[in-house]
Amino acid sequence: MWELLHTNFSRHVSLTDHEFAIVQSLFRERKYRKKQYILQEGEINRLETFIVKGCTRTYEVDNNGQEHILQFGIEDWWVGDLYSFFTETASRFNIDCIEDCEVLQINKENLEVLYKMVPKMERYFRIMIQNAFNAAQHRILHTMSKPAAERYKDFISKYPQIEQRVPDHQIASFLGIAPQSLSRIRKSK
Amino acid sequence: MWELLHTNFSRHVSLTDHEFAIVQSLFRERKYRKKQYILQEGEINRLETFIVKGCTRTYEVDNNGQEHILQFGIEDWWVGDLYSFFTETASRFNIDCIEDCEVLQINKENLEVLYKMVPKMERYFRIMIQNAFNAAQHRILHTMSKPAAERYKDFISKYPQIEQRVPDHQIASFLGIAPQSLSRIRKSK
Repeated sequence: MWELLHTNFSRHVSLTDHEFAIVQSLFRERKYRKKQYILQEGEINRLETFIVKGCTRTYEVDNNGQEHILQFGIEDWWVGDLYSFFTETASRFNIDCIEDCEVLQINKENLEVLYKMVPKMERYFRIMIQNAFNAAQHRILHTMSKPAAERYKDFISKYPQIEQRVPDHQIASFLGIAPQSLSRIRKSK
Repeated sequence: MWELLHTNFSRHVSLTDHEFAIVQSLFRERKYRKKQYILQEGEINRLETFIVKGCTRTYEVDNNGQEHILQFGIEDWWVGDLYSFFTETASRFNIDCIEDCEVLQINKENLEVLYKMVPKMERYFRIMIQNAFNAAQHRILHTMSKPAAERYKDFISKYPQIEQRVPDHQIASFLGIAPQSLSRIRKSK
């Protein structure tokens, strides 16, 4: 359960056993069944969630009831609405489970305790956000400048594990295209 | 010159005079003329840049030579390629000046010194990146889910100061539409 989180932290900061024991005391384990929500729109995102097992999607529902998928999440990824989490404002996003999930979660109070007790974790979270920001910038430019077929090719080469675990209509939503366009693109490969 | 930066910091962290003197010793002042580059693609982004006066644009040039604008920058904003800065890898972006600019800049070595001497600045930069990330997520969903006319309306209500300072074809590029489409949208308002 904890090994994946430890390895993830170790990529950016080195923690002593004592420091990781502090981490363990401040996170909690939780399981969600497929289709359960980790976050629902209108709620404040009280928890940052690290996926140990399973697959999630983060999406917005527009005024016409259409879903727009911002992000998928799998093992070794963080999910949550960072902005809602840090500003304690209502989220526009839903996060639900595409598969049964096992996660580790920390709330804001405990994260502040963690920053105080293990200050280098502030650095870890800065790097994590920075990487997420970089991915978001990539995605903005891709969405604006590349045709759908190329975006699909990028998606499957970057996230081959996700393509196999997620229904086609959700991949289409992530790419911002109609499901029929996705079928056409696949056939013409 | 320094007041704007001080006010900006003060929104998130409170600094003593001594701490702000450390900031001042680690930043440098610089002026750029209109059309000069702050960053060119292929270079490592060695400096984080805070705009005191002027207007910039951050953009990518695709294989067909077309420019795609990711971001404009004006007074009180940070510009730079954060990912290139922190990972010391070549940037895909260009940042140039739409107007004459006065900026304050810090390099990575000095930023590390700043984090050591004034640890709460790590928090400031985390919050700054977090807000940038949130804006990027908004933009992804907007680009995917909203028609161009609505995106234009959002842009001018959010950034009225920018619309007046930036040429039309650059606003079109930022919105990911053709300049002709922008004229059409404006006429139909």
